[in-house]
Amino acid sequence: MSITQRPDGRATDALRPIVISRHFTKHAEGSVLIEFGDTQVICTASIEDKVPGFLKGKGQGWLTAEYGMLPRSTHMRMDREAAKGKQSGRTQEIQRLIGRSLRAAFDLEAFGERTLHLDCDVIQADGGTRTASITGAMVAAYDAFSQLKVRGLIEQVPLRHFVAAVSVGVYQGQAVLDLNYVEDSGCDTDMNVVMTEAGHFIEVQGTAEGAAFDRNTMNQLLDLAQNGISDLIDLQKQVLGLLGN
Amino acid sequence: MSITQRPDGRATDALRPIVISRHFTKHAEGSVLIEFGDTQVICTASIEDKVPGFLKGKGQGWLTAEYGMLPRSTHMRMDREAAKGKQSGRTQEIQRLIGRSLRAAFDLEAFGERTLHLDCDVIQADGGTRTASITGAMVAAYDAFSQLKVRGLIEQVPLRHFVAAVSVGVYQGQAVLDLNYVEDSGCDTDMNVVMTEAGHFIEVQGTAEGAAFDRNTMNQLLDLAQNGISDLIDLQKQVLGLLGN
Amino acid sequence: MSITQRPDGRATDALRPIVISRHFTKHAEGSVLIEFGDTQVICTASIEDKVPGFLKGKGQGWLTAEYGMLPRSTHMRMDREAAKGKQSGRTQEIQRLIGRSLRAAFDLEAFGERTLHLDCDVIQADGGTRTASITGAMVAAYDAFSQLKVRGLIEQVPLRHFVAAVSVGVYQGQAVLDLNYVEDSGCDTDMNVVMTEAGHFIEVQGTAEGAAFDRNTMNQLLDLAQNGISDLIDLQKQVLGLLGN
Amino acid sequence: MSITQRPDGRATDALRPIVISRHFTKHAEGSVLIEFGDTQVICTASIEDKVPGFLKGKGQGWLTAEYGMLPRSTHMRMDREAAKGKQSGRTQEIQRLIGRSLRAAFDLEAFGERTLHLDCDVIQADGGTRTASITGAMVAAYDAFSQLKVRGLIEQVPLRHFVAAVSVGVYQGQAVLDLNYVEDSGCDTDMNVVMTEAGHFIEVQGTAEGAAFDRNTMNQLLDLAQNGISDLIDLQKQVLGLLGN
Amino acid sequence: MSITQRPDGRATDALRPIVISRHFTKHAEGSVLIEFGDTQVICTASIEDKVPGFLKGKGQGWLTAEYGMLPRSTHMRMDREAAKGKQSGRTQEIQRLIGRSLRAAFDLEAFGERTLHLDCDVIQADGGTRTASITGAMVAAYDAFSQLKVRGLIEQVPLRHFVAAVSVGVYQGQAVLDLNYVEDSGCDTDMNVVMTEAGHFIEVQGTAEGAAFDRNTMNQLLDLAQNGISDLIDLQKQVLGLLGN
Amino acid sequence: MSITQRPDGRATDALRPIVISRHFTKHAEGSVLIEFGDTQVICTASIEDKVPGFLKGKGQGWLTAEYGMLPRSTHMRMDREAAKGKQSGRTQEIQRLIGRSLRAAFDLEAFGERTLHLDCDVIQADGGTRTASITGAMVAAYDAFSQLKVRGLIEQVPLRHFVAAVSVGVYQGQAVLDLNYVEDSGCDTDMNVVMTEAGHFIEVQGTAEGAAFDRNTMNQLLDLAQNGISDLIDLQKQVLGLLGN
Repeated sequence: MSITQRPDGRATDALRPIVISRHFTKHAEGSVLIEFGDTQVICTASIEDKVPGFLKGKGQGWLTAEYGMLPRSTHMRMDREAAKGKQSGRTQEIQRLIGRSLRAAFDLEAFGERTLHLDCDVIQADGGTRTASITGAMVAAYDAFSQLKVRGLIEQVPLRHFVAAVSVGVYQGQAVLDLNYVEDSGCDTDMNVVMTEAGHFIEVQGTAEGAAFDRNTMNQLLDLAQNGISDLIDLQKQVLGLLGN
Repeated sequence: MSITQRPDGRATDALRPIVISRHFTKHAEGSVLIEFGDTQVICTASIEDKVPGFLKGKGQGWLTAEYGMLPRSTHMRMDREAAKGKQSGRTQEIQRLIGRSLRAAFDLEAFGERTLHLDCDVIQADGGTRTASITGAMVAAYDAFSQLKVRGLIEQVPLRHFVAAVSVGVYQGQAVLDLNYVEDSGCDTDMNVVMTEAGHFIEVQGTAEGAAFDRNTMNQLLDLAQNGISDLIDLQKQVLGLLGN
Repeated sequence: MSITQRPDGRATDALRPIVISRHFTKHAEGSVLIEFGDTQVICTASIEDKVPGFLKGKGQGWLTAEYGMLPRSTHMRMDREAAKGKQSGRTQEIQRLIGRSLRAAFDLEAFGERTLHLDCDVIQADGGTRTASITGAMVAAYDAFSQLKVRGLIEQVPLRHFVAAVSVGVYQGQAVLDLNYVEDSGCDTDMNVVMTEAGHFIEVQGTAEGAAFDRNTMNQLLDLAQNGISDLIDLQKQVLGLLGN
Repeated sequence: MSITQRPDGRATDALRPIVISRHFTKHAEGSVLIEFGDTQVICTASIEDKVPGFLKGKGQGWLTAEYGMLPRSTHMRMDREAAKGKQSGRTQEIQRLIGRSLRAAFDLEAFGERTLHLDCDVIQADGGTRTASITGAMVAAYDAFSQLKVRGLIEQVPLRHFVAAVSVGVYQGQAVLDLNYVEDSGCDTDMNVVMTEAGHFIEVQGTAEGAAFDRNTMNQLLDLAQNGISDLIDLQKQVLGLLGN
Repeated sequence: MSITQRPDGRATDALRPIVISRHFTKHAEGSVLIEFGDTQVICTASIEDKVPGFLKGKGQGWLTAEYGMLPRSTHMRMDREAAKGKQSGRTQEIQRLIGRSLRAAFDLEAFGERTLHLDCDVIQADGGTRTASITGAMVAAYDAFSQLKVRGLIEQVPLRHFVAAVSVGVYQGQAVLDLNYVEDSGCDTDMNVVMTEAGHFIEVQGTAEGAAFDRNTMNQLLDLAQNGISDLIDLQKQVLGLLGN
Repeated sequence: MSITQRPDGRATDALRPIVISRHFTKHAEGSVLIEFGDTQVICTASIEDKVPGFLKGKGQGWLTAEYGMLPRSTHMRMDREAAKGKQSGRTQEIQRLIGRSLRAAFDLEAFGERTLHLDCDVIQADGGTRTASITGAMVAAYDAFSQLKVRGLIEQVPLRHFVAAVSVGVYQGQAVLDLNYVEDSGCDTDMNVVMTEAGHFIEVQGTAEGAAFDRNTMNQLLDLAQNGISDLIDLQKQVLGLLGN
């Protein structure tokens, strides 16, 4: 379908190779390495038996997310945020997005006064780190809740619906799915979409970095995202062993 | 068109009363008080004769934005960010949005090695402070550039296109335009849209705070936003004396 | 009486036009816009139903103040303190002064375990922002306490005495009242005086920025301040409707 | 003259025993231990061969001051400011006062592009630490400039006039000089005065912590301060060997 | 030789299985995943073409190290240092140790005005993270310098000597090599030793966490460390292809 | 025994003149000025009637240490850490070392739920400030506990064993005891040793700043340290009046 060749030769509507490795590290209740092509993110889910002050005594749980990049996960080494003493606006924006997306995936009232901490740490960056984080954190969170269930602390995983995320954008005049770093740096429009397995929107964040984009382009981008997310959710379920056969 | 009554009785597609007062304070090159109903924001535009390090010697300008709320602009007093020693993630997210939106409005290569600082300070908050900020900052920036032109430092205002912003959302099952605080607190979906005078998108940021929303709702929301922004841009031009008669 | 002309033509013992606008914003229990000429400060008073740790259980209240300037309230844009991550020494000095002055105005033991937060935010600066802040905060605090009384939570406004503040200084060899920015920048001596309606001192802070000043000058300055403050307290009472007729 | 006995038996117009020890530590260009009774402050003066950015190339010098208290200089241990990561408002207020006072003592245009750093560190606190700091820093600064002169880098100590400082206050209804901690904690009014050897004012900072004070009390306090400072300046000159015989 | 069984059944003088994987991530000039049993650390070496201010113009290079732990690399989730806004004392102590150790390994004067940044990020912690970091960083640094050589920017890797590190300690009365987390938590004495390939000491840091230890124990610990480090250096050379045959 | 002359003419195995002055300031429960030659440190011990959160309700005490340097305690003025808003890595490393060393000296379970705060503030630095701090803090802590005993709050000083510390190093090829600043700056190896009165090790921290050192040198250094510490502990006991006669 594509006229312009994408830098890695993919079709405009093709995801990069996606790999989700569960049980990646041993301490966390859920631990996933997710790869979107060369983008690699470790997503861990940790359960703590208390909630923030504003929820104390309300009988419900909380879910929160943090995001970081190793200093040399990127082409040029970035300063370490812990050493600088503050998280960038970009980091905070991303971790707020991950938190909102995953709070939509689970029923916060159904796992007691516990907090699920999601940590998404980028080991290697090649575009799409926030969408890989959301998609991987979904699996890590599911694993952590499954462990709570195995330990008899909840009756079932408090799932509302699976969520996954993907980026779409306009690269050299063409709407494309799942941009890598080269495409991301050179694109006119960049949009991150988070959807449920039912194809409903959780988050849409689109930015025209070059030319403003029209309604028609918007529709093409949303179509691409919807298909990509559908595939990602299938993969999530498959690695979790939730797909029948 | 609305079945459910909105809290202030507006039609679902009606903006609140919008007032834009230019020359609100005396020191800034551009200074605007913008009101979206009870939401009041002071937007100032300040010109500095230098650019950040990464642009030095490139012969182009820069535009940056900061956002703040007076501690008692809100229903309950908030802690002062200067006293806490850091800006919240929300503040940083908003000021990054304002900056990106206004950088799309002007040609950064056409006003020399200067920085335009936009400061959006909320005096009174009643929902929609970020969209009011963008819409007011557009006018303040225009005024600041006009002053540069009057002083003979640039030949014309380096305008690419007017931009304005509005929020839309799903309140009690209905798509509505320009949510006030009561609607914003109770809504299922909240979307902020920034568009150009040509009806093209600069930014779309939609969040399902309750139920995820479907593509049809997405389309209704974008329609509402497009009409609202068109009216806002007409008003911007009118207060700037740019509408013929 | 003056030989040297003051920059704005005032007599040496004349205040600038003073305007006090109550109910300036809608959320705060007390909200005042005070203008000393071109200096404009929003003073809000917020009541919180708890006290700091060191007062817990002692049955008395507390009153505290914070001060800020919008980045472009001044001739040249200042860095935003929230973005820098700390309040300057000047800011802290001023907010400590406002707090001490207003604590002297009210009986802290007479309004229960509550904290009155005063926020003084400078919208436009032209000299005398700290004295305008104190004078305006007095009215905002009175309004907030009045509201507590109306709601039946206290029996009467816990007033000890009205306080107001004004600056005096030596400008071009002459003692003058209520310095504006031009005078303030060029003066040899700058003194801020806070007094009660009985003409007693709450605070005196005088600094010789150029030549040291002698006892005689000190006396002239205190005379000027005493008269100016008397007029300011009359105005406070008048806008509050406390002056009989 | 006193009716009420002061806690340590002093006359109302008596200073505590004052000791100024020069060359207290070995590295600093000027180093003084000053004692006002049990209050002990190490004041060092360090010369650096550069000036802050705003003075670069103007051919003049700068003088700046910092103040600190050892954590257990006080009755109860205070948190260490370096560990808390910020200086309190009180600390900043005091170091700004010391800086202004000493800048008035010297001719900043007469010692080249150098910065004199004054560090006043309280070893033991018993009231009056800021006035002891100013009085001791005067001697340390003089010593540092003398060393510059000995090294042939300036022709003479750039002295405008000696300055010293003392506190006065109203303790149990009586105006008293040089309050110790017990008096300071219990007094109604506390005033810090900085004067020159000619008896002119550099700084006056008076605060009514209890009852507001009248003009008559103000005059008594200023009289006490003037006499105390005169004695302190005599002592400064004596320890520096500047008094003839 | 051991009487008490070690938790994982090792001999007292046995290292855990050590794995060093080069080229672990793709952007860094050197990138190593090092495993000491279940302890896993990503060590990257990044070359920057400038030196810190204190070395500018001296014609020599610099080497610096930073250390971090992913929040859930540990048994219980730790707070993220970037979110807390500061690095702990432990983190700083470790990164200073890594930096000093690696600066001893290379000739800083032999690679021009460049900085080698070493980042050691713990993915999974099970005791000995600082010694694994040093041992892995040695390989990453070697790779980075090799790349500089391949690019013709230096003539040879500026090696002084290989260094590696290991922990030793007294666990249940017995001197043991390379403590894992269980041993580390329960040991009386913990010592980290950094040595060169010639068996000379770079760093020795021993701490008696329980009973103080005598000179005889000290000697046993140093013997164990020397043998362990010798094996580690052999492995470093082997993975780098520097062992002949 | 020495061939090379040490800068101050001492024998290689000689301590500098050591002076320990108790009751140096009046507020602290224990207050010592310790001098190792020109190095002067004020060590205070403060008792607080509570413990950190992690020990609450466990019936035992805690001991913690902080360290600081006056800005001009050094040859060149250092920035004040309180003004910079953070403690350096070196400061944190030293205060952690002091804390661990002194926690080994006392039985934390034998003085109730109290915290002993040790503050070591360097007044004048000439090498060996951390070892002087530990040695002086031992005496200050002993005095503080003695006061608790006198007040009847504990039955006896909860002493496990006396500890003291000294530095050793290789200066111009020779192992020497108690390095002053000149030796410390120029030495190849620097080692800080903390031992008990029984000659057992609490801490050993050795760093090869120049050439790596061999096992033989290690042994010479430990011998020197052991003798020096033995003398220091004798002096501690003597000034505390604990040596019989």
